Amino acid sequence: MSVKITLPDGSVREYPQQVKGIEIAQSISEGLARVSLAIEVNGEIRDLSRPITEDSSIKILTWNDSSGKTTFWHSSAHLFAEALEALYPGTKFGIGPAIENGFYYDVDLGGKTFAEDDLAKIEAKMLELAKKSNVYERREVSKAEATEYFTKKGDEYKLELINDLADGTITFYTQGDFTDLCRGPHIPHTGFVKAAKILNVAGAYWRGNENNKMLTRVYGITFPKAKELEEFLHLQEEAKKRDHRKLGKELELFTFSEKVGMGLPLWLPKGTILRERLEQFMRKAQVRAGYDPVVTPHIGSKQLYVTSGHYEKYGKDSFQPIHTPDEGEEFLLKPMNCPHHCEIYKHKPRSYRDLPVRLAEFGTVYRYEQSGELHGLTRVRGFTQDDAHIFCRPDQVKEEFVKVIDLVLHVFNSLGFENYTAQVSLRDPANKAKYIGEDHLWDKAEREIQEAADERKLTTVAVQGEAAFYGPKLDFMVKDALGRSWQLGTIQVDYNLPERFELEYVGADNQKHRPVMIHRAPFGSLERFVAVLIEHCAGNFPLWLAPDQIAVLPISEKFNDYAQSVYERLKAADIRGVFDDRDEKIGRKIRDAEVKKIPFMLIVGEKEVNEQKVAIRKHGQGDQGSVGIDEFVENFRKECAAPF
Amino acid sequence: MSVKITLPDGSVREYPQQVKGIEIAQSISEGLARVSLAIEVNGEIRDLSRPITEDSSIKILTWNDSSGKTTFWHSSAHLFAEALEALYPGTKFGIGPAIENGFYYDVDLGGKTFAEDDLAKIEAKMLELAKKSNVYERREVSKAEATEYFTKKGDEYKLELINDLADGTITFYTQGDFTDLCRGPHIPHTGFVKAAKILNVAGAYWRGNENNKMLTRVYGITFPKAKELEEFLHLQEEAKKRDHRKLGKELELFTFSEKVGMGLPLWLPKGTILRERLEQFMRKAQVRAGYDPVVTPHIGSKQLYVTSGHYEKYGKDSFQPIHTPDEGEEFLLKPMNCPHHCEIYKHKPRSYRDLPVRLAEFGTVYRYEQSGELHGLTRVRGFTQDDAHIFCRPDQVKEEFVKVIDLVLHVFNSLGFENYTAQVSLRDPANKAKYIGEDHLWDKAEREIQEAADERKLTTVAVQGEAAFYGPKLDFMVKDALGRSWQLGTIQVDYNLPERFELEYVGADNQKHRPVMIHRAPFGSLERFVAVLIEHCAGNFPLWLAPDQIAVLPISEKFNDYAQSVYERLKAADIRGVFDDRDEKIGRKIRDAEVKKIPFMLIVGEKEVNEQKVAIRKHGQGDQGSVGIDEFVENFRKECAAPF
Repeated sequence: MSVKITLPDGSVREYPQQVKGIEIAQSISEGLARVSLAIEVNGEIRDLSRPITEDSSIKILTWNDSSGKTTFWHSSAHLFAEALEALYPGTKFGIGPAIENGFYYDVDLGGKTFAEDDLAKIEAKMLELAKKSNVYERREVSKAEATEYFTKKGDEYKLELINDLADGTITFYTQGDFTDLCRGPHIPHTGFVKAAKILNVAGAYWRGNENNKMLTRVYGITFPKAKELEEFLHLQEEAKKRDHRKLGKELELFTFSEKVGMGLPLWLPKGTILRERLEQFMRKAQVRAGYDPVVTPHIGSKQLYVTSGHYEKYGKDSFQPIHTPDEGEEFLLKPMNCPHHCEIYKHKPRSYRDLPVRLAEFGTVYRYEQSGELHGLTRVRGFTQDDAHIFCRPDQVKEEFVKVIDLVLHVFNSLGFENYTAQVSLRDPANKAKYIGEDHLWDKAEREIQEAADERKLTTVAVQGEAAFYGPKLDFMVKDALGRSWQLGTIQVDYNLPERFELEYVGADNQKHRPVMIHRAPFGSLERFVAVLIEHCAGNFPLWLAPDQIAVLPISEKFNDYAQSVYERLKAADIRGVFDDRDEKIGRKIRDAEVKKIPFMLIVGEKEVNEQKVAIRKHGQGDQGSVGIDEFVENFRKECAAPF
Repeated sequence: MSVKITLPDGSVREYPQQVKGIEIAQSISEGLARVSLAIEVNGEIRDLSRPITEDSSIKILTWNDSSGKTTFWHSSAHLFAEALEALYPGTKFGIGPAIENGFYYDVDLGGKTFAEDDLAKIEAKMLELAKKSNVYERREVSKAEATEYFTKKGDEYKLELINDLADGTITFYTQGDFTDLCRGPHIPHTGFVKAAKILNVAGAYWRGNENNKMLTRVYGITFPKAKELEEFLHLQEEAKKRDHRKLGKELELFTFSEKVGMGLPLWLPKGTILRERLEQFMRKAQVRAGYDPVVTPHIGSKQLYVTSGHYEKYGKDSFQPIHTPDEGEEFLLKPMNCPHHCEIYKHKPRSYRDLPVRLAEFGTVYRYEQSGELHGLTRVRGFTQDDAHIFCRPDQVKEEFVKVIDLVLHVFNSLGFENYTAQVSLRDPANKAKYIGEDHLWDKAEREIQEAADERKLTTVAVQGEAAFYGPKLDFMVKDALGRSWQLGTIQVDYNLPERFELEYVGADNQKHRPVMIHRAPFGSLERFVAVLIEHCAGNFPLWLAPDQIAVLPISEKFNDYAQSVYERLKAADIRGVFDDRDEKIGRKIRDAEVKKIPFMLIVGEKEVNEQKVAIRKHGQGDQGSVGIDEFVENFRKECAAPF
């Protein structure tokens, strides 16, 4: 008896029935087998040691797969527990999952709190146990057996978890002296773990319920190489320095006020310059690309959102309707701009010759988020989308997609995001009925999105079943300077709103047709984009974006007059900046300008006045020598060239 | 016995007690007496025939005074009623007041409806009766007497009015054969009326109550000279043509959608260009004038408006609070931007050296208006202010006022408003207690506003008692091309919000001080300003503002390629416009471009292709000959120079 195994490249191999994942890996290459952590069998992740009994599609998972990492960290949570139990017998264990970066374990230390060197001890113990390369052994047990085990051990948390499980098979995993209740899967043995770090210790109520006991949540991370831990910690440190909330405050870009309300940013003057420059950049790019700007109100009647379907879908969880003092009207804060744009499309009859109609708006929308979910500029309650809606004929979808891709890439290139991929989200072919829109239009649009992406040489991943019910889409994933991924820019086909708003155009056949609608926002939201940009460039914005481009710094008050005249000349040349005429030492002025990350410092003392020059200092690069002011302006202009 | 009469120029004359207004007028000049319509005595308007018994301040009212006009039209309503009664005996009369332009009278015609020539008959009868120069005679009657008169006449409407009057003296006015229940005052006799026109006939419920009978409301207007009626009708005609609602539709500037909601304009692409050009104009002017742009959300917590006092004052009559699905937070749509700007001012400590801080925002605000009050773009429920708040020291108020006046005049000059005056609104000196803010600050600010206005050679009127409780202000009144007055641009001192928000700065004395706040908006709101601008220039915008500056019109499809290349060259030169490649006759294309008021039509036929030129046609001015394209661009640029 044998099973047919389909590999990710589509090739099919035959293996004896009961073949194990690790054996398949070995049959591919010994090198692969050495780094294999788990196996994905027909979409389910399993231990490499489990036999495969049927024909299957598989993928061998390594550290390079996100599911590989997750398994690695889940197994590391067990290793952590083993170390903890060895060091502090009697510790009781709650749950210990893998998370985005590493794992945590909720533990009951019986009142003990950790000192700094306790953490180092735990890390050392984890590595000592890892070296033993103890195998993670899976064992099926009955509920009674499981209960007996943890009753004996005296761990009421595990007993509670067991109690909540349905009757039937329960699995235990054991490595070395430690056994845990666990569904798995796990890596083959502890020997893969070569570096371990306890990142953080916090309190957490058992099962998230504040009526329960407060446990200790220990966050940790592990790696298959010591160097990777170093890199990770360095990135963490860098990320902290670049945190947009921290830089936003230091650079005076934005603030929040309790009185205005949580999650509602107030853009300070310098942040507003940044924001307006980005808007201007996009506005020009859009006009060139044939978009028509429009302006619509920030509220709409409830009926508008009943028509669009947003009220039914989100009404209960959103900001509630706004009532009027009389006349019984009801309005909603607008959560998206599309219904308003549909009404603009409808204000006059459209012919096939008028299409595509591309309506663009920097539309500020409001969406309720719980206060606990809010985070700087990335999770807010009000934000401005660089929104546009393209109303086109079905035969124009591909060309419009190509144009939008060009616009998105123009944004990425202009703002220094060099590392991006795209995901094409398609229908679930097994379940076509749940999607709105004609079958042949879906087929065509899905094919054309892929073609458009290929024409522009995008690296794409196509994912079936990820499309919205109203149309396929293309999402961009961007890696920032720290290697973190951000979803920026979506292009979404929509067959639903044209239907709901009964949008029409008169075709060449003199008949009425439905246009296709494409939603797109290259920045996404200005708030989130600015947050990502701040962290990407660590607040060192491209010169054309920098809120302050220069700082004029007189060495002492004696030179204030000349410095002022320099400042005025630069201002007249449309160069933005500050004139620091405070009665402070020049060292202090330079330090302050460096903290503000102002690209150019123009220092003015006796020599500069005599020579009618300025001494140039570049942010982070120090002294650049002296130049005449006209020369500086000329050089500056060359360096500053805005991408529009 | 004599009375002292103070004339408007402050001079005092003595007259015998019981002197009549007309006698005072005669004593000034026979010319004045001939055109005197009524008299204002200590603020009360009276018949010229009533004796004056005490020392008084008076003003003789003529057609040049708005109260003179009002009296004239009120008397004309009586004349209209007299004519109606003569023509249609048995007509019953409701009320007949003067209005902004003319008067109306609500009448019960017993079922009759007017045909066009009925109206001409009424007008003729009015003039016939006017020629008799019948005196308007005032008579005091008792309530019983009044009731008896109208019972006999069988006019239940007047009886209802009498019934509602308090006991005491009631007055009748009689001219010729017609007597009306009326408080007056009236002009001396009907002979002043030299022209009469019935403007409109509509239905109106008696006393505005829809449970009452529907009466006929007849609108009319009269003038002391026939020529003035002609001018008025011409202006009416012009105003109708320039109505911004009509042109807004024809030029596709904006639209409304019932689904979005009443009073919430949707700015169409062409209107958005206009709006954005105005914003850009103001933005640049403001940056030059030292303003810092900021961006704030369109909602704020209820607490913000409790602090500012707006909630207490307007909360009940506004859009009602927005609730959240949980957490019990309450937000309000922002009715003004100042509270948000106060919070930005407060986000960091301020020193006297940092002031003035000038925060500017194109802030969209929402204010509830009853649906019946809405009117095009001039009365809306959401509008964008070119708002800014200046936070300054008391010693900076004058300089800031001068700067804001300069900005306002820059707007007026750039947009062709050449005719303007300003009103300085001061405290009521007799009632200083009702104003917030220190006495000496008020004195200083009032003096300095006047000085600032004088320095900029503004024609001003100072009005005592017109200041807001929180500070004095300066308002601009602008006359448009039809001579209609619009209030545009306000500069308002505010001692209240700095107090309520506890705004502070550290002075040179190292002590904490309150800044003064100045609100200002040169456009007022973009919506209202655009409405006024449309009507002022009849949709013929200055070239730098025009949404479409050119239209390229090929004579036939044969020339489309060349025309397209011309269009692309103009677009590359940042000239906005349309390329009309429809399969239409050139005459039709020109007519359509004329209707759209596109400043330049570039016509392209065989000759133009051969000569590589374009034939230029100017809107409303016809053929301008042919030029090469580069030459056109150069000339266009000279003509288009934007005022920024």
